[in-house]
Amino acid sequence: MSVGLSAPGVLYPVQGIKLSACHSGIKNDSAIDDLVLMELEEGTAVASVFTTNKFCAAPVVIAKKHLDTSEPVRYLIINSGNANAGTGKQGIENSLKSCSEVAREAQLIEQMILPFSTGVIGEQLPVDKISTATPGLFKNLHENNWLAAAKGIMTTDTLPKAVSRQRVINGKIVTVTGICKGSGMIKPDMATMLAYVATDALIDQDELKTCLKKVVDTSFNSITVDGDTSTNDACLLMATGASKVEVSSSNQDFSDLLNEVFSELAQSIIRDGEGATKFVEIKVEEAITSLDARELAYTIAHSPLVKTALFASDANWGRILAAIGRAPVSGLEIDKVDLFLGDVCLIKNGLPHKDYCEQKGQAVMQKQDIDIKVNLHLGQQSAIIWTTDLSYEYVKINAEYRS
Amino acid sequence: MSVGLSAPGVLYPVQGIKLSACHSGIKNDSAIDDLVLMELEEGTAVASVFTTNKFCAAPVVIAKKHLDTSEPVRYLIINSGNANAGTGKQGIENSLKSCSEVAREAQLIEQMILPFSTGVIGEQLPVDKISTATPGLFKNLHENNWLAAAKGIMTTDTLPKAVSRQRVINGKIVTVTGICKGSGMIKPDMATMLAYVATDALIDQDELKTCLKKVVDTSFNSITVDGDTSTNDACLLMATGASKVEVSSSNQDFSDLLNEVFSELAQSIIRDGEGATKFVEIKVEEAITSLDARELAYTIAHSPLVKTALFASDANWGRILAAIGRAPVSGLEIDKVDLFLGDVCLIKNGLPHKDYCEQKGQAVMQKQDIDIKVNLHLGQQSAIIWTTDLSYEYVKINAEYRS
Repeated sequence: MSVGLSAPGVLYPVQGIKLSACHSGIKNDSAIDDLVLMELEEGTAVASVFTTNKFCAAPVVIAKKHLDTSEPVRYLIINSGNANAGTGKQGIENSLKSCSEVAREAQLIEQMILPFSTGVIGEQLPVDKISTATPGLFKNLHENNWLAAAKGIMTTDTLPKAVSRQRVINGKIVTVTGICKGSGMIKPDMATMLAYVATDALIDQDELKTCLKKVVDTSFNSITVDGDTSTNDACLLMATGASKVEVSSSNQDFSDLLNEVFSELAQSIIRDGEGATKFVEIKVEEAITSLDARELAYTIAHSPLVKTALFASDANWGRILAAIGRAPVSGLEIDKVDLFLGDVCLIKNGLPHKDYCEQKGQAVMQKQDIDIKVNLHLGQQSAIIWTTDLSYEYVKINAEYRS
Repeated sequence: MSVGLSAPGVLYPVQGIKLSACHSGIKNDSAIDDLVLMELEEGTAVASVFTTNKFCAAPVVIAKKHLDTSEPVRYLIINSGNANAGTGKQGIENSLKSCSEVAREAQLIEQMILPFSTGVIGEQLPVDKISTATPGLFKNLHENNWLAAAKGIMTTDTLPKAVSRQRVINGKIVTVTGICKGSGMIKPDMATMLAYVATDALIDQDELKTCLKKVVDTSFNSITVDGDTSTNDACLLMATGASKVEVSSSNQDFSDLLNEVFSELAQSIIRDGEGATKFVEIKVEEAITSLDARELAYTIAHSPLVKTALFASDANWGRILAAIGRAPVSGLEIDKVDLFLGDVCLIKNGLPHKDYCEQKGQAVMQKQDIDIKVNLHLGQQSAIIWTTDLSYEYVKINAEYRS
């Protein structure tokens, strides 16, 4: 079950990035790939963000440690089927081992390798299977393997998620191609969010970090299924420079290009959210601070009452107003609040709009994609977040897994 | 469906408090009472707490306004079936009207009357029905009508909720009797929490306020079904002084007595939580601050992943650790965390306990009442909160209501 999600379109290769995927045996089904290798050309700039969850997995610990050295990143080794989280000292050793296997094959040092894992929590990573599979991965590295890589990192995803865009910047084509996985951040033990985006733009590493921070805020940090975060979440942005098009974080064309790819990837996670039957955009306008706007949007998005009403296609404005009323927003004045479902105004100045009738709201709620807009009329800041409804299927998936 | 909730036991009258209930016609079913009057003897001290939701209902606005005057509270008029919320100026007028009707009948001024409403949001209160019913309510006022009052304030509750306790203080019997309603704070449009507790202890009004603040923190403010708060929540503590037993907020016996009644009332709301199949106590120990302890307990309690695991009787410690890891607790060290289900230690120092096996956790999870204990080993503060699981039934009730 997914909400308006389709298979990836054309995926342009990014010069300087090669990928391969295989079945190593971490997952039982031999028809499914569970191990991915990405090779980054020498000189590739890398920016990253990781989960803020303090219960973070061994590969997150190691990846951050390797990034903290001055060594350049040359390979990513990513497995699905096992999160290597809650695995203690042994987990750390296993994560290091998967790096050293790649390093040995590439004749590099292990600090140049970053490990990533996603899957079941609390089981030791079968690192021997990774060792055995590593040489084969090197043989199959190819620029055109983005789709195979997208498939190889899937866990409960119903479709591979990949987006590719090109744009002419300074007279030359710049490419951005990315893959991600995650059925929402709703299943820390099975549905970690991982995202890997590469571009051939030429950009300084610090500038790339600024770009990533900015674009993540309005994409992966603007989605939520139920507020749960994973132990393994990671997002990498890589720039090979192969196009020789120099950009910086203030280049609007480049920012727009990144934003297109990141937003579509982030939305694809929500559209594939476990049990999702609706794709919901929540926009808060005219807040005093952008933090207020975000907090308010999240309070609405996380309300089980709002979510079940969305599932029922019920234009229950009382639940939305009640969520707004308890949101941690300073200076909120309920009698200034306007509330829209799509183009339909439900609430004007905190009270039901005189022209509103249940049928109008119902017509919007019947759709698969629903826009909720709240205008606070307090300031000039706004925020958009994307979420899903709360369905029987959500309870079923999350109650029956493991049982 | 409720979790180990039974009908109220013996309810001792509280000298100085009289109650009556009737069917006024706000609800359709004429067999069900929907209007309650409480009479407070002259000189009764009153302490109160109200919803912090900024989208608060007309009766909350009026009750607070009347409490702010120097007039003593003499009557409470409480209706179920209609929340009088989201009703604008007309709602305020209707709420005032219900007070003035009671005031006229009692030959008092309307500032001595407090109104309360619970039920559907966004529909005008049929105040004429309240006017018509008021004289009859006065005729039936009686000390022994606590159960009738408990029934009259019900909405989606499956059972009336009332608790009564007596204790000898300073050589004399002191009585505390209370009623409440609410199927959790999970349905702001139908399941407001209302609580009315009375005692015959003799206590100064300011001291009574201190008592209420303290006891509410460890009872009604320590329960959650899904984090949604109502527009109409209210809790009143009344002391008539009729027993002539003088107490203060520092009297341990009196505090214990109040705490018993308030805790049992609060727990009864959770046990009657919509769709609840489990009653869950979450205890956080050895936190640096009590706020940290509470925030952590709430993060676990609100995690849909933890809640669905509870519903599935699945001892999924990964989900609990992931919730702990994202809780807003400063200085949290995952490798100091211990986690218990009942008496079974699942996690010791952040890792699975060596003697733990799935069967042990499963045995605890199969029970109807489940204790989750987290020890942070950081400080000396603790907190307890009570919550429920997240079931198909929860989605069903909240998705199908109104549809």
